[in-house]
Amino acid sequence: MTTPAAAEPRGLFVSFEGGDGAGKSTQSRLLAQWLTGLGREVVLTREPGGTELGRTLRDAVLHGGHVDARTEALLYATDRAHHVASLVRPALARGAVVVTDRYLDSSVAYQGSGRDLGADEVERLNLWATDGLLPAVTVLLDLDPALGRTRLTGAPDRLEREGDDFHTRTRRAFLGRAAADPARWLVLDATRPAEELAAAVRARVAVSLGVSPDVSLGVPPGMSTGVTP
Amino acid sequence: MTTPAAAEPRGLFVSFEGGDGAGKSTQSRLLAQWLTGLGREVVLTREPGGTELGRTLRDAVLHGGHVDARTEALLYATDRAHHVASLVRPALARGAVVVTDRYLDSSVAYQGSGRDLGADEVERLNLWATDGLLPAVTVLLDLDPALGRTRLTGAPDRLEREGDDFHTRTRRAFLGRAAADPARWLVLDATRPAEELAAAVRARVAVSLGVSPDVSLGVPPGMSTGVTP
Repeated sequence: MTTPAAAEPRGLFVSFEGGDGAGKSTQSRLLAQWLTGLGREVVLTREPGGTELGRTLRDAVLHGGHVDARTEALLYATDRAHHVASLVRPALARGAVVVTDRYLDSSVAYQGSGRDLGADEVERLNLWATDGLLPAVTVLLDLDPALGRTRLTGAPDRLEREGDDFHTRTRRAFLGRAAADPARWLVLDATRPAEELAAAVRARVAVSLGVSPDVSLGVPPGMSTGVTP
Repeated sequence: MTTPAAAEPRGLFVSFEGGDGAGKSTQSRLLAQWLTGLGREVVLTREPGGTELGRTLRDAVLHGGHVDARTEALLYATDRAHHVASLVRPALARGAVVVTDRYLDSSVAYQGSGRDLGADEVERLNLWATDGLLPAVTVLLDLDPALGRTRLTGAPDRLEREGDDFHTRTRRAFLGRAAADPARWLVLDATRPAEELAAAVRARVAVSLGVSPDVSLGVPPGMSTGVTP
């Protein structure tokens, strides 16, 4: 199989994971900017709520009345199934890079380990929901939950209101998953400066794309990632 | 274990299944009336849409934009998980009889066989969603789909608009499930008169409750099931 340079770009699926306040949305955006500068089509998205149906479901689970743990896990899996089928897979099929702020690993960590439903069962549910789609690269922005909380702004949602024990268990679950599959995961210390983290992410994604991570190629005119070349 | 007569009624879970227009809502209501007349607490409910969250989900799947088969199956499973956890299990725990118009078997028939997702996978998904809750009695009102269609009124929803082949496959799936578990299923010819069907349902439910199916005991003053004693 040949890999033509620019005519037929291969799609790439990248996810960012970690606790609230770890910098996932900032790093997703910086990666998307760099990729856009390389001339790639980029779909920057998020879970939950990456689609219209998903936003309805997210509002139901995060801001609605009480739902039990299974219903909560199923709401996220439904959001994910629709997100993958209607947005992620079509984008990958046309060669785009899809960058998502949270994906399946968040459910395994939060609903599986955090809520004691069983990580294996929640993973199986979500692999069924997505017909087995996993990212090529998953970046874990690892952060002490107590530190993450101080970075949050606005009214806390349902998960953000959970106690320290819940967030400590989910952090441990993320780290455990990353350790078990180092080919997919890149674990970064989220307390490091944003520019340093962005460079590490670019280096890893560049390998998957078979391009140079040199940032000077990646910044479109008038746009800066804050990195000194 | 003793079974006290009236002091501690045991809960009983009864579902009605079958194609559209088969008479499920009529028979559910007649059964509920009879049980109420016996002095039982009855919770008459339905899927999808037996809860507020469920109605949001039902609208999303039946009247919203296109969703793929997995998302559709997950929306129904989410509705069911919430229905079971918030309404069905609490009612059974306090000794009520829960009568539902559609339950898990509808998903296995419609999403599993009708949509080719695989009946076993859809059943496994829904057993996980409900933590394994199955009805003690499931009444199948069996009807030729072509006949059922002539009984429908109002604008057809998404499933009602499906073709003959889809509805023939779901009918076959219901009959297959009933044949495999005769202890749970009661299969009735839905073309029989409503009064005759209601009597057959009462007879089966009476066995499960350990009461007499004699209808004269079951009709509260001023309420008639249309059956001549």
